[in-house]
Amino acid sequence: MATVESDARRYQATDLEHFTARVLEACGLPANDAALAARLMVSADLRGADGHGIFRLPQYVRRIRAGGMNPRPNARVLNDQPSTAIVDGDNGMGHLTMARAAALAIEKADRHGVAWVGVRNGNHAGPAALYAAMPIEHQMIGMYMAVASANHMPAWGGVEPILGTNPIAIGIPAGEEPPIVLDMATTVAAYGKVKTHAMNDVPMPIGWMIDREGQPITDARRASEGFLLPIGEHKGYGLAVIIGLLAGTLNQAPFTTDVIDFNADEKSWTNTGQMVLALNISNFLPVEVFKEQVDRNVRVIRESRRMKGVDRIWLPGEQSWHRIQERSTAGVPIGANLLASLDDVADRVGVERLSR
Amino acid sequence: MATVESDARRYQATDLEHFTARVLEACGLPANDAALAARLMVSADLRGADGHGIFRLPQYVRRIRAGGMNPRPNARVLNDQPSTAIVDGDNGMGHLTMARAAALAIEKADRHGVAWVGVRNGNHAGPAALYAAMPIEHQMIGMYMAVASANHMPAWGGVEPILGTNPIAIGIPAGEEPPIVLDMATTVAAYGKVKTHAMNDVPMPIGWMIDREGQPITDARRASEGFLLPIGEHKGYGLAVIIGLLAGTLNQAPFTTDVIDFNADEKSWTNTGQMVLALNISNFLPVEVFKEQVDRNVRVIRESRRMKGVDRIWLPGEQSWHRIQERSTAGVPIGANLLASLDDVADRVGVERLSR
Repeated sequence: MATVESDARRYQATDLEHFTARVLEACGLPANDAALAARLMVSADLRGADGHGIFRLPQYVRRIRAGGMNPRPNARVLNDQPSTAIVDGDNGMGHLTMARAAALAIEKADRHGVAWVGVRNGNHAGPAALYAAMPIEHQMIGMYMAVASANHMPAWGGVEPILGTNPIAIGIPAGEEPPIVLDMATTVAAYGKVKTHAMNDVPMPIGWMIDREGQPITDARRASEGFLLPIGEHKGYGLAVIIGLLAGTLNQAPFTTDVIDFNADEKSWTNTGQMVLALNISNFLPVEVFKEQVDRNVRVIRESRRMKGVDRIWLPGEQSWHRIQERSTAGVPIGANLLASLDDVADRVGVERLSR
Repeated sequence: MATVESDARRYQATDLEHFTARVLEACGLPANDAALAARLMVSADLRGADGHGIFRLPQYVRRIRAGGMNPRPNARVLNDQPSTAIVDGDNGMGHLTMARAAALAIEKADRHGVAWVGVRNGNHAGPAALYAAMPIEHQMIGMYMAVASANHMPAWGGVEPILGTNPIAIGIPAGEEPPIVLDMATTVAAYGKVKTHAMNDVPMPIGWMIDREGQPITDARRASEGFLLPIGEHKGYGLAVIIGLLAGTLNQAPFTTDVIDFNADEKSWTNTGQMVLALNISNFLPVEVFKEQVDRNVRVIRESRRMKGVDRIWLPGEQSWHRIQERSTAGVPIGANLLASLDDVADRVGVERLSR
């Protein structure tokens, strides 16, 4: 999660959405698509995934203008079966492709109990949590996996960056408690966090990155000399491989050396591979009973004895949920640097800037 | 993976299976059930999961004799829907319940593309890899999760052991390459490894366990003063919570403080919760094309540049696969301590010992 700059001022989510939508429309997206993508992008900011929200708008605009992303895709459902399908996003914005894939998974799970929808010709779609959480509103459990849009991790024992941070997210509804939403990269740190540390000249903890000799890198400005470390050593490496095969290879989307680095190359189609699963809780037990039991377990965990100095035990997704509540009323903090880059984008595509 | 004792001698898998089956039959299992459970138990030994194979036989026998496990269960399929179901194992051996659940998931995935089968009233079923790998023979991808049979981990920031090592396994077929099978606890070390270190008086690496003050424990004999650490800190904690909810709560099986410690209590039903998913590859692309692409990615990973001093890069499950080949011909090593405990079990239930 990016650090909120001290010079940040707050913008209401609706204002950010309108701004984002008009930028995307000016780039050629149909109004409905622009509005949906804008809503999903800003929902990343609402939940505190600042590096995955409106922060990405300038990059998306550059990709669209360079021909690397399709503003008017003709997305199609392929291999449509009772509980599985593939959505070919035709290189449209990742948010639009994933929203369609999640809706299809929910519809199929409603009829058949569980559904697995793969995505090809997708794109970076913001935080994994968004799509794992979509089934929650339909009283379902959600799961999302993606091939990350750049390779920053070697195999376990290797020194060649052929794997990404390949994230997985899982969403589970609760009753009175916030929903459980786990959203994790398979690396100890996301690459965006490394960039933030480099920008702010703050040392990284040991364990985030190593160099080619296996020695820790703590100076984030040396990041290009080294690699991200997987969680749990060979375990996180194994998870990254599995996720790459399930979200990439199974959808005939790139994995390992085929992955296009979307930071280095703004012109090529990334053909990002993703998947979303929806599971219908009512096939197993009454939804209300399930939610009561989730609440009960949440409270057992939260109220369990704490280590000295620990104020509170958090459940997965709980801090994001609190941030959504806070930012929905107080607004989303936008720092001066980000604001300048948004002004710049507005000027370039010829739309009104975010009002002060 | 348990350390092979230096005094180990080798036994052919079929001999171990016959021995295990006659012990289980003597405990009241029907012949077919005893044979299937024996085959699955010994297949754990074949793949090198020594702490999860025939090593467990004395404990299983004690449970059956104490009334904690049902030798003649009436397992039933509940909530039978196109792509989902629950198997109620009626407290039979976990291997039998899980084999049935996996077969049902495969059958449903064959018809509908993907299937998710939950288990309640299950039991410890050996290594997670066994069940994630079952769909592979049917050209499918498999996934397995379980609520571990004892709690050795606190919440992140906590000091009360309310979570287990809750494992996840995923199996993916390859072509000429060994299948990819990831089998991981959500803790850095499995508790069995701690026990092995205590038994052999070998110090544990920093990072496996902490004490109530958060300080590392490296003396495994002090294990009861502390807790297992999750992989990736809060990430592994989050995964353990998610797996507990999906494998336990969703199946109305215990999670957190409801879990019965099957080491401390041999009489109570554990009502172990598990799940297995099967995904039909041919719904996405021709199986042969998928396998070629898995092989290609496996080779890219294996042949990527290595860190100095690293002899080989391994894929998830590859070392187990090699061990299966080796032990299938050379036999499974059984140490003197284990042999003595198997002799003891044989004497107690009144069957012939393993021949020397």
